[in-house]
Amino acid sequence: MKKALVVFSGGQDSTTCLYWAKEKFTEVAAVTFDYGQRHKIEIEQAVRIAVDAGVAHRIINIPTLSELTTNSLTRDDIAISQEKGALPSTFVSGRNLIFLSFAAIYAHENGISDIVAGMSQTDYSGYPDCRDTFIKSLNVTLNLAMDAQFRLHTPLMWLTKAETVKLARQLGCLPVLALTQTCYEGKRPACGKCPACKLRLKGFAEAGIDDPLEYEINKY
Amino acid sequence: MKKALVVFSGGQDSTTCLYWAKEKFTEVAAVTFDYGQRHKIEIEQAVRIAVDAGVAHRIINIPTLSELTTNSLTRDDIAISQEKGALPSTFVSGRNLIFLSFAAIYAHENGISDIVAGMSQTDYSGYPDCRDTFIKSLNVTLNLAMDAQFRLHTPLMWLTKAETVKLARQLGCLPVLALTQTCYEGKRPACGKCPACKLRLKGFAEAGIDDPLEYEINKY
Repeated sequence: MKKALVVFSGGQDSTTCLYWAKEKFTEVAAVTFDYGQRHKIEIEQAVRIAVDAGVAHRIINIPTLSELTTNSLTRDDIAISQEKGALPSTFVSGRNLIFLSFAAIYAHENGISDIVAGMSQTDYSGYPDCRDTFIKSLNVTLNLAMDAQFRLHTPLMWLTKAETVKLARQLGCLPVLALTQTCYEGKRPACGKCPACKLRLKGFAEAGIDDPLEYEINKY
Repeated sequence: MKKALVVFSGGQDSTTCLYWAKEKFTEVAAVTFDYGQRHKIEIEQAVRIAVDAGVAHRIINIPTLSELTTNSLTRDDIAISQEKGALPSTFVSGRNLIFLSFAAIYAHENGISDIVAGMSQTDYSGYPDCRDTFIKSLNVTLNLAMDAQFRLHTPLMWLTKAETVKLARQLGCLPVLALTQTCYEGKRPACGKCPACKLRLKGFAEAGIDDPLEYEINKY
């Protein structure tokens, strides 16, 4: 019985990873992190998708992250922006480091060695902790931390957004993407204008596939 | 101005590290983690020692750790024990991984690159995340996670407990060790019988130095 744990935000990428894991492993569990994100609606969507996919789902609270960092993802009073050459204002220092570390602890306590996460270097938008080298280094560190043999899987690492959309179609989870939350403004229908919405729409357009998600704007 | 952050539990080792950092750096700050530990009294002692040492001190809450793990350090209903060949029941999976990751995030947000922590491989008692290889791997991972240039310092890594006691004398912080909290039972005067107390007493005995801490038992 091979069991995997998916780090699952309820967004497009991690939902695709959830279905990828369902195909590769005989049993799949998912964890979603509540870290005080502005787009809290993604947690509600994550619950819906996990129920729909029939996987065990645990929400883990990490209040520490927003206590320690200043960014527009957890604070209403900071605008979402990206200046050229600078890190986006949505960057939460060390977010994936903390997420994957807690996911590994949870996996370890539950006898799971395979951890699946949706990081992608191709569209990493300046987030250093989405890059492949970070993930590989973290894999070694986690194994040393717990005398374990974790395997971190990042099936989207080298895919473009368009390729990820095509992978979702291949996995048969395209309709589920209507439930996913991408919009950084936390809107449903999605705003279509924030960096995350724009990236998503661009991916679907390039793949020549219709995005099943509802938008406030005309998406074409 | 070279500033360092000390991961500071209020115990003997991290107090020695605090004074080591005060000698090496021009400015020192300290962080203490409240993770629901049974021996919460160590946090009160940490506050006293930090005031005494004149360093800025921040307490960071990490409720997530005790939510995810089962161990005798955060749970009253599990006995403190160590079976031969097994991890001690006080082991919190990934504890130092989480502590150092949050410390690095805090340091990063405050423009600090030097982080000091009291891990020691010499008396690591089976905790994999006290070992030098883990610390070095984590250092690389933290730098990759935040595009940073952290330097993790572990001045006690290869010292015996007796050598650490001698280092404390050399740094002039021996009297401060009367304020430190070592006892896993959270007792003051210390129980003198738990694994942590025994290790401490052995170190002082081997160094031929009197432990300024009060014990319930006759320490000689």
